[in-house]
Order: sequence, then C-alpha cells, then structure tokens
Amino acid sequence: MKGKYVYFFGDGRADGNAEMKNLLGGKGANLAEMVSLGIPVPPGFTVTTEVCTYYYANGKKYPSELKEQVNSALARCEKIMGAKYGDPANPLLMSVRSGSRRSMPGMMETVLNLGLTTKTIPGMIKLTGNERFVYDAYRRLIQMYSDVVMEKAAGIEPAEDKGIRVQLEHELEKVKKARGIKFDSDLSADDLKKLTDTYKKIIKKVLGKEFPDDAQAQIWGGIGAVFQSWNGRRAVNYRRIEGIPEDWGTAVNVQTMVFGNMGDNSATGVAFTRNPATGDPHFYGEWLTNAQGEDVVAGIRTPNPLNLYMKHENDSGQISLEEKYPKLYAQLDSIRKRLEKHYSDMQDVEFTIQDGRLWMLQTRVGKRNGVAAVRMAVDMANEKLISREEAVLRVNPEQLTELLLPMLDPAAEKKAQVIARGLPAGPGGASGKVVLNADRAEHARAKGENVILVRSETSPEDVHGMHAAQAILTAKGGMTSHAALVARGWGKCCVVGCSALDIDYEKRVVRVAGLTIKEGDVITLNGTKGLVYKGALPLLPADPDANPFYKQIMKWADGFRRLRVRTNADRPIDAQRAVAFGAEGIGLCRTEHMFFGDDRIKPMREMILADTLEKRQAALAKLLPLQKKDFYEIFVAMNGRPVTVRLLDPPLHEFLPSREELMVDIAKLEITSPKSPKLKSMRALLDRVQELHEFNPMLGLRGIRLGLTMPEITVMQVTAIMEAACDMVKAKKPVRPEIMIPLTGHINEMRAAFDIAEKTCKEVVKRRGVKPAYLIGTMIEVPRAAVTADEIASCAQFFSFGTNDLTQMTFGYSRDDAGKFIKPYLENKILPEDPFQTLDQDGVGRLIKQAVELGRGVRKGIHIGICGEHGGDPKSIGFCHRTGFDYVSCSPFRVPIARFAAAHAALNDKSSAPAKTAKRSCRKRGR
Amino acid sequence: MKGKYVYFFGDGRADGNAEMKNLLGGKGANLAEMVSLGIPVPPGFTVTTEVCTYYYANGKKYPSELKEQVNSALARCEKIMGAKYGDPANPLLMSVRSGSRRSMPGMMETVLNLGLTTKTIPGMIKLTGNERFVYDAYRRLIQMYSDVVMEKAAGIEPAEDKGIRVQLEHELEKVKKARGIKFDSDLSADDLKKLTDTYKKIIKKVLGKEFPDDAQAQIWGGIGAVFQSWNGRRAVNYRRIEGIPEDWGTAVNVQTMVFGNMGDNSATGVAFTRNPATGDPHFYGEWLTNAQGEDVVAGIRTPNPLNLYMKHENDSGQISLEEKYPKLYAQLDSIRKRLEKHYSDMQDVEFTIQDGRLWMLQTRVGKRNGVAAVRMAVDMANEKLISREEAVLRVNPEQLTELLLPMLDPAAEKKAQVIARGLPAGPGGASGKVVLNADRAEHARAKGENVILVRSETSPEDVHGMHAAQAILTAKGGMTSHAALVARGWGKCCVVGCSALDIDYEKRVVRVAGLTIKEGDVITLNGTKGLVYKGALPLLPADPDANPFYKQIMKWADGFRRLRVRTNADRPIDAQRAVAFGAEGIGLCRTEHMFFGDDRIKPMREMILADTLEKRQAALAKLLPLQKKDFYEIFVAMNGRPVTVRLLDPPLHEFLPSREELMVDIAKLEITSPKSPKLKSMRALLDRVQELHEFNPMLGLRGIRLGLTMPEITVMQVTAIMEAACDMVKAKKPVRPEIMIPLTGHINEMRAAFDIAEKTCKEVVKRRGVKPAYLIGTMIEVPRAAVTADEIASCAQFFSFGTNDLTQMTFGYSRDDAGKFIKPYLENKILPEDPFQTLDQDGVGRLIKQAVELGRGVRKGIHIGICGEHGGDPKSIGFCHRTGFDYVSCSPFRVPIARFAAAHAALNDKSSAPAKTAKRSCRKRGR
Repeated sequence: MKGKYVYFFGDGRADGNAEMKNLLGGKGANLAEMVSLGIPVPPGFTVTTEVCTYYYANGKKYPSELKEQVNSALARCEKIMGAKYGDPANPLLMSVRSGSRRSMPGMMETVLNLGLTTKTIPGMIKLTGNERFVYDAYRRLIQMYSDVVMEKAAGIEPAEDKGIRVQLEHELEKVKKARGIKFDSDLSADDLKKLTDTYKKIIKKVLGKEFPDDAQAQIWGGIGAVFQSWNGRRAVNYRRIEGIPEDWGTAVNVQTMVFGNMGDNSATGVAFTRNPATGDPHFYGEWLTNAQGEDVVAGIRTPNPLNLYMKHENDSGQISLEEKYPKLYAQLDSIRKRLEKHYSDMQDVEFTIQDGRLWMLQTRVGKRNGVAAVRMAVDMANEKLISREEAVLRVNPEQLTELLLPMLDPAAEKKAQVIARGLPAGPGGASGKVVLNADRAEHARAKGENVILVRSETSPEDVHGMHAAQAILTAKGGMTSHAALVARGWGKCCVVGCSALDIDYEKRVVRVAGLTIKEGDVITLNGTKGLVYKGALPLLPADPDANPFYKQIMKWADGFRRLRVRTNADRPIDAQRAVAFGAEGIGLCRTEHMFFGDDRIKPMREMILADTLEKRQAALAKLLPLQKKDFYEIFVAMNGRPVTVRLLDPPLHEFLPSREELMVDIAKLEITSPKSPKLKSMRALLDRVQELHEFNPMLGLRGIRLGLTMPEITVMQVTAIMEAACDMVKAKKPVRPEIMIPLTGHINEMRAAFDIAEKTCKEVVKRRGVKPAYLIGTMIEVPRAAVTADEIASCAQFFSFGTNDLTQMTFGYSRDDAGKFIKPYLENKILPEDPFQTLDQDGVGRLIKQAVELGRGVRKGIHIGICGEHGGDPKSIGFCHRTGFDYVSCSPFRVPIARFAAAHAALNDKSSAPAKTAKRSCRKRGR
Repeated sequence: MKGKYVYFFGDGRADGNAEMKNLLGGKGANLAEMVSLGIPVPPGFTVTTEVCTYYYANGKKYPSELKEQVNSALARCEKIMGAKYGDPANPLLMSVRSGSRRSMPGMMETVLNLGLTTKTIPGMIKLTGNERFVYDAYRRLIQMYSDVVMEKAAGIEPAEDKGIRVQLEHELEKVKKARGIKFDSDLSADDLKKLTDTYKKIIKKVLGKEFPDDAQAQIWGGIGAVFQSWNGRRAVNYRRIEGIPEDWGTAVNVQTMVFGNMGDNSATGVAFTRNPATGDPHFYGEWLTNAQGEDVVAGIRTPNPLNLYMKHENDSGQISLEEKYPKLYAQLDSIRKRLEKHYSDMQDVEFTIQDGRLWMLQTRVGKRNGVAAVRMAVDMANEKLISREEAVLRVNPEQLTELLLPMLDPAAEKKAQVIARGLPAGPGGASGKVVLNADRAEHARAKGENVILVRSETSPEDVHGMHAAQAILTAKGGMTSHAALVARGWGKCCVVGCSALDIDYEKRVVRVAGLTIKEGDVITLNGTKGLVYKGALPLLPADPDANPFYKQIMKWADGFRRLRVRTNADRPIDAQRAVAFGAEGIGLCRTEHMFFGDDRIKPMREMILADTLEKRQAALAKLLPLQKKDFYEIFVAMNGRPVTVRLLDPPLHEFLPSREELMVDIAKLEITSPKSPKLKSMRALLDRVQELHEFNPMLGLRGIRLGLTMPEITVMQVTAIMEAACDMVKAKKPVRPEIMIPLTGHINEMRAAFDIAEKTCKEVVKRRGVKPAYLIGTMIEVPRAAVTADEIASCAQFFSFGTNDLTQMTFGYSRDDAGKFIKPYLENKILPEDPFQTLDQDGVGRLIKQAVELGRGVRKGIHIGICGEHGGDPKSIGFCHRTGFDYVSCSPFRVPIARFAAAHAALNDKSSAPAKTAKRSCRKRGR
C-alpha cells in the first residue's frame, strides 16, 4: 500500500477540503476548509481514516510511508509557528484529536500539550515567562497521557476505582487538602511541579512503565491511542447502536497548541455571527483576557461583551474587544463575514488571541431559537445570501412552535425553584389555581379564574374541565396519554407523568417535594420543558402575525407547497382559531366530543341505556338539534371550506361510569345500607355497563360497527349534518360537508354504511328542497381497509388515513398501554422513533402507499388526506407529500407548522432544488 | 326476436340436456338429461329463461312464436300420455314450476293440477273412478291458483291476514269444524265439492274476478305467474343477498301430472341408490301403495320396505316392492344402475307408479353421513366408477369429524328430553356429573369420576378443570369464546352460550327449564347439536382405524397432498394422540399452558410479583426444571418430528387474580374488618395487578415485548428447550426443536430476541457438549410483520402465520368481543364468513401472500406454516396450499381432516384433475 496518508493544513494552504469527510473525518475536513478560506487556524495535519483501516488490518502497524509524511507535516507547522516540536529552546506543543465521518461525541480520545518534557519545560517557561502555566500544562499532559495512552490504549482494565486517572486525581486532592485550598487554580507553580514528580512515580509503580520524557514518543503514543480508541468498548457500543460501520475508521488530527492564557496580551472568546436569540444581524459574543476557552463557558469570571452592540444590548460597563483591540476585532469581524458568506449561514465560532495574534479554533453552524431562525432566514434571503427556497428550508418547522405559544419569562424561570418534573406534553407556559376535579375546574373558570387541572390521569369525562383549564398536570401517563393528546390538540400547556405528585382527592391536596399544595394554590407549568413551579410566574405572550419575518416566510412557504393543510376541530372556536392559523378546511370533526357537555351526556346515556329502539330514537331526537347547531356554527366558521365530519367512533361504554367503580360502590352499599333504594338502579346500570364491557375496547364495537348495528345513530348524525348544510344554503352561505365513516374494514361495511348515509342525505335534501354538495367517504385506519383499498374505493368518495388507529393495529400496540414497552424500545433503539409521533414509513407507510395506489387505481383522483396525530408531524408530512396525498389535517396550533413542513416536503422533493450541496450539508449538520 | 323458446322432453327424446342450465334452468336441464337416458319421466317442456328476459324487456309480453311452440309441445305430451289437455272425455293435467340457473329454494311459484275445470272433472272422475281424489285435486288447484296467479302475480298486496290463501284456509277449517273432523283426508268427496263452490264465490268477491274455468287460461296463467314471481319481493331480496344477477331470469317447466294415489295399482316411493347411513352398496328405499309422494315422508302411514335387503335390515314384516311388483322393481333397479353409472354418484330418487306404470319424478345426488360417504367413495373407486382422486374429492373433509368423535346414541337421544340449547362448540357427546368449579372438577376427575364443568364463562385459570372434565358447558360466550377454543383444540365436547342456565355458584346449583340441577347431578351434552339432557345417555365410541374404508381413503389422500400436517399440542398426551392421528410434527406448543398447573402457578406468580431481577430469576429457576421435563416428554412423544415451541405469549396479568374482584374484596374488607392483616397483602397484590392492567391487553405487553423487557424469561425458556433437546441427543433419541418468537412486528425486535435465544442456545450447547439441530424463527401475526416480511426473513429462520391474531389485528376485531357485531354482520351478509373460522382470503390472505413473497424473496425456501385456528379449516387449508405453505398445524383431532383437506387442495389445484366437469358439478350440488 502506497499513498498519501497525511493531509496538512495551515497558513492559507490545505491538502484537504470540506468534501473529504470520508478520508479526513468531519473535524479534519472542516479545519482544512477554514484554512483554505485564508482564516488563521493553528496549523496541523490529519492522519487519514485509511491509516486506521490499515492499522487494524496489519496487526496494529502503520504504513511504512507514514512516519516520513508525519515528520514532513510537522516541519511545516514548525515553520509557520516559528518554533520546533521537542526543541528545548523554542518548543512547539501539539494536540491529537480523533475525527470520524460522523460525530461520535465523547466516544474517542484526545491528548493535549504533547511535546512538554523535562527538556522543553525550561524553554517553555522562558518563552511564556509563566512557570505556573507551564507546570499546570505538564500536569494535565501527564494525567491525560497516562490514562489515554498508557492505560486505556494499552488495554489495561483495572477495577473501577483503581484506574490511573483515579489515583492521580486522588494525589491532586491530597495536595489541595494539605495546602488548605479549594480550586486547582490556587495551586502554585511549586505545588504543580512537585505534583508532576509524584505523578511520574505513581505511574511507574502502577503501570510498570516510565512516563515518556521524549516528544517523539509522546506524539506517536497519542496517535496510536486515538486509533486504539476506535475499538474501545464505548466506541464499539456506540457504533453498534448508531449503525456506524466498523470499517469506516477514525482519522487523527494533530494540531499546534495555542494559548489564550499566556498573559495580558492573550485572550479567548466565543461568538455568533448573528444574534442567536433574536436573529438581529449583529456580531454577538463574549471574551476574556488571559483565559482559556472553558473559562468563558464555565461562568466563574464574567466575560466581557464582544463589541459595542453587545455592550449596549446588555447594558454592560465592561470594555469590549472592539474597544480594547480594534484591529483584532476588525480582523475577527472580517472573518465573521467571510464565514457567513462561505457557509451561507450563521456560524458559532471559537477564537483565541495568543500574544496579540488571532487564531480561529472552530466554526460550526450556530444553534438558534425559532424566532431567530425565522428572522435570519428572511434576512439572509433578502441579503441574497440564500434563495427563498433555502430560507424556508433553513427553519425547522418545529421551531415555529416557539412563535405560537405563550412562554414563561425565562428570566423569572431562572430564579424560581422547580418543585417537580414530568414529560413536556403540551408546550408553552401557564399559571393558575390548582383544581383536582373537572367540574370544579369548569366552575372556577366560569367565575373567571385561571385554573390548572391536576389529576392522577384524565379520561374523556374530564374533557370539559380540561378545556376550562389553562393547563393540565397529571401524575401518570406518557406523551401519548389522553391528557397529552387532548392538550396538544388544543395547543394547551400540559405536563404529564409527573410521578412525584401525591394527589389526595379526598383532602383536596397535592403533596410534592415536601410541600402540601392545597386546591386553590397557584402553580406554574413550563410545558415545553415539563417543569412545575410553585406560585405564579410571568408569561410572555405570542403573536406570530405581529412578526413581519414570520409573515414573510409563511408567505414564501405557502407558495412552495403542494399539500393542502386542514385542521382537526370539534368546536366552532377551534375552527375559527385554525382558520386564523391558515387552515384550509376541517379534516376531522369528531362528533363524540360534542356528547360530553352537561346538556349532552344525559340524553347520550339515555340513548345507550335504552332497551327498545323507540326509547333509543327518543333519546337521539333530543341530541339531533344540539348536533345540528354545532355543525351549523362550524360551517359558518369555515365559510365554505370543506368540513369532514366523522360519525360516532368510540365504544358506548366510554359515555358511562366506570365499571370497577360501580362494582366497588355496589359492594360497599350492599354492606352499609343493603336496603338502599339506589341499589336497584345502580345494579341495572352495572348490568348495562357489563353488557357493554369489552376486553379490548380498541378492537370492539365502535365506529362503523356501531353505525351498522344501531343505524339510527348514523341516521341522526347525518340528518344533523345535512340539516345544518341545508340551513347554510338557505342562508346563501357556502358549505362543503364531507361525511366520514370511521373504522371501515370491509367493502360490504362501506356499502351498507354508505347506503344508510346516502338515503338519509336524500331524504333531508328532498324535505328541505335545497341541495348542498356533499361527499361520503371513509377513514382508512384498519389494516384490512388499507389492504383492500381498491374495493373500498369502489364505494368511498374520499379516503382519510386515520394513522393513529392504523399504527395501533399495524403494530399491534394499544396506545394507552404501549408506554411500558415503547420507552425501553426507544432506549434500546429497537424502535427508531415513537410510531405514534412520527409515522412508521417502513411498515405502516408501506400499507398506506399500497392503499393509495389501490384506491387511485379504481377511483382516479380520489381525494386523500390524513387525520391522525401524524398530520402535524413534519417528517410524516414529508411522507404524505411523496405519497401523493391531497392534504394533511392537524390540530389548529400545528397548522402553521404543517404548512411549513409541507413546503419543506415540496422543496426537498424537487430534483431542481436551488440550494447547493455544501449549503445543504451545513443545514443538516446543526440545529 | 325469432328462435326456439320451448324445449320438449319425454319418451326418450329431449331437446335439451344437463349442460343447458343457463337456458333451461337447473330443473329443466336435468329433466331433459333423464329423458335422454331413456328413463320414464312424465313428458313436458321447458319455456326458456330467454322468454323471461323478453317478458320483462317488452312490457310483460311474450315473443309471438311462443304460443305455437307451447301448443306444439303440449300436443307431444298428449300423444305420449294418450290423453288431451282440456279434453272433457280424456283430460290430461299439467303442472308449472320455476327453474333458474341456481337453486332459489321456495323463492318462486308452483301450480299443480292445471287443466281441471267443470268441463273436465266428470271425465277425470270417470277415468280414475275416484270422485274424492278429483275434487281434492280441484280444491288444491283453486287454492294454489287463486293465491299464486290471481293474487300474487297480479301484484295485489293485502294485509298479512287478509290474503286469499288465508281466507280459503279459514273456510276449509270451518267445514272441518262443522263436520267434527281433524284431518283434511277425512273430508268426503261431497264436502270437497261444496268447498270448491264456496272457494269460487269467495274469490269472485275478494279478488273481483272469476276463477278461470278454462284449461288454456289456466296454463297461461300459470306460466305468467312463474315469470312474475322472478320479480316477487322474496326472490328479489334473495338474489340481492346471494348476488344472483337480475338478468338471468327463470325458466318455466310445464310437466304432465302423474298420480300414485289413483288406486291399488298405483304407488309412490323414495329411494337411494346405496344405503345413505352406512354406504352399503344396496338399493335402499320405501314405498306406499295408493299414496302421494308426501305421504311417504310425512310418516302418517308406515311405508313398506323397497326390497328384501331393506326388509331384512329393518326386520320388517311388510311386503316389499321387490316381492309385490317384481317386474316394476326390476325396472326401477335397472334405472338405479343407469343413474349411478351416468352420474357416478349415489342418487336420491322419487318415483310414482300410476296405474301400473313407473314414472321417475326426480333424481339428485343423495345426501349421506360421513361414514357412508367414505365407504361409497372407496367402493365406487374400487368399482372403477370413479377415480381414486375423485373418491377423495367426494368426501367433504368435515365429514370425517363424524368418524373421529364419540357420539350420543341417536336412538336414546330421540327419547330423551332436551332441557337447554346452546351453541355447538365442540362436537361429540359426553355424560358426567355437573361441577361448577375448576378445582373441584379436577378433584372429582382424580377420583375417577366423569364430570362436566359448567361455568358462566371460562378463563385461562379454569384450564386445569376444563381439561379434567369430559365436557364443558357455559352460559355465556360464542363459538370463539375461550371455552369453545380450548374445547375444539382438545376435541372435547362443548356447548357454549347456553343462556337459559342460571348458575348459582354459592348454592352450587344450576336452574334451567324449571329444574334445579345440583352439583353432582348427571347431565349429558350433544356437542354436535348444542343440546343438553338431564341424566346419562349412552355413547357410541369412535374408532376410525377400525374402519377399513377410512384407512383406505386416508392412504389415498396422503398420496395426493403436498402440504405437511402438524399439530398444536402443549402436553405429551396431546402429542401422542396427534401422532396417532397422523401428525407430522408440532407446529405450535404453547408454553404458557404449562404455567397453569397447581405446581406452576405459584412460582409463576412469584416471578410476576418479584420487585427485583434477582427475585424474578429465583422464581424462574423454580420453573426451569418443570418446563424442561415438559419439553423432554413432548420430544419423546414426537420421536424426531419437528417441534415448534412458542415462547411465553400472554400478558402477565392473565396469571394473576381478577382486578375487579380484588377491588371489590378489598372494599368489602375495609368495611367489615378494616384491621384485617390480609388487607395489606391484598392491597400490594392489587397494586401490581393495577400496574399490569391494560386497556387493550391484546395489544399490550405480551409476546416478544415481554421477552425483550424481561429477557430472563426468554433465557429460562430457551434453556429448558435446549437442555431437554441435549438430553435427547445424549439418550441417542432424535429431536428437532424449533424456537418460535411470538408477536414480532419489527426486524429490530426479531434481531434482539434472536440474539438472546441464540446466545442461550450456544451456552447450553457448550455446557452440555452435544449439539441438537435447532432453528429460531417467528410467528407472523402482527400486520407490520407481514408487511415487512422481507426484513424479518433476513433474521428469522422460519415463519409460522398466527392467523388468529393476524385476523384480529388486520380486521381490528377483538376475538373476545367481536361476537356482538360479527353475528349481525354474518346475518346481514356483511361478512361472508366468520373470519376467525375461515381465513379471510381477500384481506388477511392478501397480507399473507405478500408476506410469503417478501419472505421467500430474501430467504429462498424459508419454511412456512400456519398455526392459527385456520390450520384445521379445509377452505383455509386450500389457501395455504395455493400460497405455497410447507405445512399447516391444527389441533390433534383435526389432523385427519387437515390431511384430507390438504389432499383436496392439491387435487383441486391440478389443471389435470381427473374428474369430468359433469361429475364435478354433481359433486358440488349436493351434500
């Protein structure tokens, strides 16, 4: 094997570039790229991944050419830096770092300060005039090297507490104790010098080898240790889990050390090329004189503002880099501009000033919040830095959430104390009085109070209270629990699974973190992070439309997308809100939610408990005008946009009291007052509840099965829809009702349900003398419906994929129960994602694709949408776009996100996408 | 339109034949066929289905040629019979009957005795010398004609009780009452004569028309009525349900009347060409002199034996036809032989002797029981009447059931009184003492008593008692209830859903039909019919191998089939039994059934309640030797045949007490003895039960999910399997274990479970130093596994389709709950069949086909089987054959049926099937 194994970079010249990640690893490729841009980067070189492969294929030997190539590259570094590696008079120090194709954070090794030996230390002290600095560096070198090179890379595996690292740290602590000091930084040069001697003795004793006092030995030891660490236990496990192939290997980056802590003419800092919190197009950062990089982040010293803008922003009295070193600042600012132009994106940079000379240590795409992301994208497009398409692609759809929800004031949050943590089920923030019961929550809300409903868990019976509450907090349940689903649908703040809560319904108190919170006490939730605070914290309201950048980017996005976006809304107010967010129709109006109101649940129960058809019809007759009114108001709110109404879906027992509670209550009453007249009616109720009880209600008598075994329910609902639609037509208002049959699995079911609905529609049309246009279609949510979609399409006039149930049945996962195994499955990477949050394209997606093809084969151009939770998930929306859906439907608060994700989908789908590969790869890297 | 509309048959000549069903209808085509064979059939003619189509297409008018063609055909009948239709001196009577392509029993009309008028009656009386006979015929003509032709065909729709039929019947009853007689046959000629006069007056009054006293008017009225009845309400509904096209139309058969009740020289009889109860190749039938066909069937007079064989068989003292009319008997016997030879099957014939002349009125394939079917098929093949392939095809696989189960003695059953009826869930018969509790049932069985377990419903906790019982009787549940499934699996007699039972567990009595049956009282079940009797009824045991015909046909069948047949068996005794029935392996050994025994449930519960891994492993260690012993004994029983062991599948709460009962018990105890020390442990138990409680256990933590979240269970089970297999190898006995992972849905699950199992296997092999051959594969029972079978096959070494769960999830039907809507769905033909009994080929089958293709695409020749209930269902077995399965697996008692069905599948699949079309269509018609 002959070839080039070492790629040099430094002083404006680099053998490699950003495209060579496979050979140089990510880090090496990017260092080369920066150097080529003429940016001052400490010179160095990359030993390629091919050497790693060779190393393992050849009994841990290097290619024969390697030594010469390393020496030659090292010589170039020396020339640039005007110092020599291992030279006693004018020594140069080096670092080694790993670098694989894909980032494997913390999995492989780093050694700093290579080249410090008893021979070079005096020269280094002379050079820096700082003995303490040099011995501290030497101490660090010995600690790292003995651990990484001499122990780990040599394959020595001592017991947990017997490793060399632990023993040396122990020695350090001993010295600190003896000297009565707290921080490492308080150790004197002398302390450190003695410590290094002790270190070396311990190493000899424990590892049986001398710490190498030779610069050459050190550098080859470091390179070898990095290659060894590719097959270290942590790295191997990480690769297995992440699916990174063994044979990729790692590169080794050998780079000149530079120091910001060499004196008052040295400094270090971090900066963003634009404000990452607001998107303001100003250079934004902090710096410290005579300091190392970590000092800026660690927060022990307060860093200075980078420039006058920052100084003004933060009202800081400290001197800025712009003022102190105007020339260096100007150089930095020009690098900032070059980097932004080159990467066409906001960069997060680290820099060091060593003895008046500026070095850039790192540049990468900077993280930013949603507000900033939107502003930067729009600005950069207006600056012609990127195209409008690219601007839209730059903003992650999920980031828009931040623009849509009221948030806790971060400043106030910093000062407050978290009393409990749960899962962030509904983002945003909310404060209110604790209420432990849905009725009382509704009552308090009616009095104008802000309440937070706190329950062990919620059920459909709590919906009115959940609706009345500002936010919901539960002790049980996961991200897909009832509370989480309902809250997300409404864009309501919600924290679930907060297991530290001990709720006492009888005494009406919640015990948590040693506190006893009474009903009526105020708490605050951060639903974005899943935090609970005592007392009220201030909120920052959201008003996205007041943000011109948001408006602009949404306009661009809407211009790019093909998918229409509808909403899931059950009430006129939801419909209104969704329209304000840009919804183009209702994709799912769940009629059952209409049955839980106080005026509805009574006739609903009457209907269920009816023992004759006549009684059932009488109860339904009471519900008819209520449903009709609901539909009319929704139609008005949607103003001619299509409204898909799903007929009754859940099993009837959901509308009745709990079976177990009834059993217990009866058993108790039988003992305490066996002659109570209540017993008889309770027993009768239990009988009906037992009759309706199902072992697996999810797979039981619901949806179309209910509509076919009790067709009078279907007749009532369709009558209500069509009567309302006729009223609209009579009022000369536009209306487009779509009647949706749930849970269809067989063409014969579809036909039978279609016939009932169609007959009812015709009767209403005949009676009313006007004819609104309407469609009758079906959910595709049972796997059998997907598999026989050709047959179903022969009757159904539209398809709406109910991916919640389709996922449940295709996986055989009950959403209410699956938390128990989905959590460990996600942890062990058995599932790449929670299939209830992101559509499982490999499994459920195959079924959907097949169903779309089968359906369109029979009924060309059949209108196809999705109304499961996935309709608001950007990844899943991408799938819907590629699979040829006509629309997605999601909760009102996710409509902007869905619109945006639909634009992403369309842009990503175009082979003629305007963004260049380099830009794309940047975009993918960060955020 | 010009053409031939009338097809004559009679006296050895027929215009049509059996192939012309589309034109002549089934009946007309077969009458023509018989005539062509030279068999004496009363002459007649068929008006074609084309006339029906013409009739409806042309405003209910006939083609102009029809009248002449009818007259000409009628003239040919007159010539043969030597009498003339409508002739006062020598009148001929005719009948009209419908006849469509496919039988629509009772949906269309018939009119007999056409041609009787005031003009022809005197001639008829003179001819027959029997005035009463003539007036009775006339009375019947008026009744039928006024109802069918004058009212129904005219489209008159009176109220239910105002129809002409009801009014005339009312008149008949009035006369009988006035004359003080009970039977119609006691009416005198004079009574009947008067009655016909009254009838005619009522008709004039009610329908406003005279009853036609003209033979020509009558015959055209009759023909028209048949055509009208094609669009009668009943026929239209029937066609809609059965999917018979409107435009097929019906033919009309006009045939000469013959009478077996014209005097002592007349007779009538029915016969089978072989004994339909035993298959004995003897002519078998009964006859009566001076009687009509229905008299033989009605049982008012005891019919005479047909021949000496019958006389001997039944030890009858009556004279046989063979003795009384040797010549006519010889003619009949020769017709019998001709028909059997022509149709190559046993025929069921009706004959009439009118005034010494033999007429055949009908021939059709005769129904027979299973024993007879087997014998006839073997005999006919040996007689070279049919091929061996055809012989196998002649026996419906389900009929073999009758040869495999002990049956109640039908004679004893006739005399006994049914006390309750339920659903026939497990065929056969059984007697035993009633026991209301599984433990007591087991106890009683241990004492050698035969018991019948009677429960409201059963659960897995009752399995030991169900096993101990001779039979199972439940008050609730359907054909797919737990009791039904378990019973069918064991071939155990079982009646379910017997709602008349009122079970009082406390008093240990069952109240039914006014009786109080105490525990210990003996009852008897007929599981084939779903009947319950008080007391013990005698049983007839089954021993199929004692039947040489059974042995012969099974040998032939095994030679034809390609599919292998395995069995589902959990215990050594089941395995032995299945091998005796011809099982070629175990396709499903459910390990969970092994955990319900008294010695097992305790450590199992310990395992579940364990709060640390150590405690769980300690409990598992107790189960290990028990499981190992089970497997060893099963391996011994199977003697080297493959044994597929499924790892633990059900959710853990199935092994714990009921949640509701615990809640109620605790609530009660809290009131009655709140200081009871039991409360604490009960509450702890409830906590764990609550923790394991699932809303939809079917879709919860079970199968592979359990095996991956608690891998120690998998390790224990695989260790037990492999230890047992190693013991076999050490004992030099053949063994082929196959480890089957349940409920796999994702390739990552498969890989993870495979790794655990494989690692465990290797450890056992290493420890024991011997290596049995083994496979690790998976069930395909989750739709996602079917959809991604290519991925799964990259790891799984075999597939076994678990069609029970696959059906549940593909349809979204919980088998435990679906009865509520499957029953009405079947009644309303929304489902063509119960998908849990017969595989849904259109939906679930599509998924399976796809999975087989995907799986074989990745792992060529991967072994594929089925282990759901469908593995024993003949139709589903046909599907498995066509889809390229390697084997089916079913309960031991269904193994012969499956072997036979597999032969059917192979024979039906061959394009070169030996049977001719005519023979095939015969086979399909009957039985």
